[in-house]
Amino acid sequence: MGIIKDNIRNLEGYKINKKPYRIKLDANEGKNIFFQDISKEIMGFIKEMDINLYPDADSFLLRTEIGKYLNINPDNIVAGNGSSEMIELVMKTFIDKDDIILSFIPTFSMYSVFSKIYSGRFVGVNSNEDFSTDIDVLIKKAKEIKPKVIFLCNPNNPTGYLINKNEIKKLLDNVECIVVVDEAYIEFAEGSMVKDITQYKNLIVLRTLSKALGLAAIRLGYMVSNRHIIDTINKVRSPYNLNSISQYIGVKALQNKEKIFEYIEEVKEERKYLYERLMLLPVEPYPSNTNFIFFKSDIDKLDKKLEQDGILIRSFSEDLEGYYRVTVGNRWENLEFIKSLKEIIKNENG
Amino acid sequence: MGIIKDNIRNLEGYKINKKPYRIKLDANEGKNIFFQDISKEIMGFIKEMDINLYPDADSFLLRTEIGKYLNINPDNIVAGNGSSEMIELVMKTFIDKDDIILSFIPTFSMYSVFSKIYSGRFVGVNSNEDFSTDIDVLIKKAKEIKPKVIFLCNPNNPTGYLINKNEIKKLLDNVECIVVVDEAYIEFAEGSMVKDITQYKNLIVLRTLSKALGLAAIRLGYMVSNRHIIDTINKVRSPYNLNSISQYIGVKALQNKEKIFEYIEEVKEERKYLYERLMLLPVEPYPSNTNFIFFKSDIDKLDKKLEQDGILIRSFSEDLEGYYRVTVGNRWENLEFIKSLKEIIKNENG
Repeated sequence: MGIIKDNIRNLEGYKINKKPYRIKLDANEGKNIFFQDISKEIMGFIKEMDINLYPDADSFLLRTEIGKYLNINPDNIVAGNGSSEMIELVMKTFIDKDDIILSFIPTFSMYSVFSKIYSGRFVGVNSNEDFSTDIDVLIKKAKEIKPKVIFLCNPNNPTGYLINKNEIKKLLDNVECIVVVDEAYIEFAEGSMVKDITQYKNLIVLRTLSKALGLAAIRLGYMVSNRHIIDTINKVRSPYNLNSISQYIGVKALQNKEKIFEYIEEVKEERKYLYERLMLLPVEPYPSNTNFIFFKSDIDKLDKKLEQDGILIRSFSEDLEGYYRVTVGNRWENLEFIKSLKEIIKNENG
Repeated sequence: MGIIKDNIRNLEGYKINKKPYRIKLDANEGKNIFFQDISKEIMGFIKEMDINLYPDADSFLLRTEIGKYLNINPDNIVAGNGSSEMIELVMKTFIDKDDIILSFIPTFSMYSVFSKIYSGRFVGVNSNEDFSTDIDVLIKKAKEIKPKVIFLCNPNNPTGYLINKNEIKKLLDNVECIVVVDEAYIEFAEGSMVKDITQYKNLIVLRTLSKALGLAAIRLGYMVSNRHIIDTINKVRSPYNLNSISQYIGVKALQNKEKIFEYIEEVKEERKYLYERLMLLPVEPYPSNTNFIFFKSDIDKLDKKLEQDGILIRSFSEDLEGYYRVTVGNRWENLEFIKSLKEIIKNENG
């Protein structure tokens, strides 16, 4: 049908696993760490809420709580349905037909998918062989091709690599375009740019409650930037974009700072444990600053083989054929994964 | 800042009332009709749910239930965050820079706002003086300017006017472009096109749970169309677009068909009552096929005057200066509104 936009006619959708499983380590979801504690309050809220009325159109209470969580002004925040909506808001606000979106590759696949949907052109700058990145190469490319928006997934999905703050500042000082730092996994690392938003006219930071806060089911993400950008984004944002229940659960969850930090420490410990175990096996894990580990394996269709044991991990195609991403689970999940992996390796060599 | 897209630089946001009130008749919200009945099940669900896991990416159970509600195939349905997301999905899929979006005017203001955001050009065809519409005029305009998409809000917001099915079919037979029939209020009227989707290659119907089902807080809307269009829309839709709780509440709500129909009959009765009362006053109400009544009044800033009595209604500007839209409330709300209106009229004439 000729009526569909050219650039999306051959688009492929995002890859989602919908397999039966006993251990789910494919989507970097956090754990259900404090929902039981706050479920009583949530029940009370739902019972009393005016479900027939539109939600608060600008998520005021939620933004206030996010402000407290990050120690920033709520007026510098926009909230919505996950980081996805935040990425789309950036595209809608800045990307006109054929505008360029620049990013290191490999990175979160949705940047290039959304670029296509919004009629932009995605350009990827290769990472180094070990998946570290060189900010000078990105700056050089940006000066050459003049992108409208640069996306930095930091730490990067799927490689786990972290760009340090000085490099990001160097980038910001050397380009005029919008720089979006997607910090979906930053709680598992150091070096958030959230506090620096007012220092730059072109910096946007994205965050989510799906990872460190373990709330992927309610689809809650937000954007932090200077007032000028936030005001513009708000003109483009759909009225009533975020439902009332997600707003409320977000508020209650963010009040559990201590539990969140406790959980983050747990993940870091398990990440170390899992990494060390992987290092003992004939696979190549990469150092991680996130709640997952990226690794290379020669085993053909490793993900399918783990699936037969009820364990889901993420596989990749094309340039990343032979690479895998496993979410850091709890101790039992990590042990089961390692056990299953060892078994597969044994069978391969047998 | 030169980096923001031209077409949104001067965009104004959607107008939202955030005033204190005792009676809210400004946003055509339904009533909380059965939430108490299903709240126990919802509590149970929330208590047991895996809040840390991403929602079902294609809302399977919800689409199944919508399928039963409308007696159509779930594969012809896409669900998401309100009709807003559905309108945006249409824009994202079909509108490239400078493509034309055609609609009768006045109509739902978001069609033209989203047109601007998605770099399209919105063209409005004037309704008749009494806000009825002439499909032949629209067809003639479409043949002349070749729009990519036509939006019909049916029944129309804010006028309440209903285009009959034969006219819509005539339009579909005479144009090649996508025809979107936004049936947000159709439950309060007759003549849904939902059953006709498989007969046309270019028909999309939008529906919502915010009006007749009284669930505006959870932001749940959906689109119905042929498989080819649905498959394309699904490529453009964000993965995990709809949170798990809204999905579940939608499922449980749609199982209450009888209560929904009962409520619709109540609204129709109250609409008749309110219309007759308005006819007795020096205002000009228009016949309504929705859960609101559109009327003209010479009273300057009528909405502000009602606001002082704690009653919110919707006012309009520019070409619709002096026109108002009041949601059909329950008997008490309607009586309070009429009483307050009478008082204002008396004071104006005194």
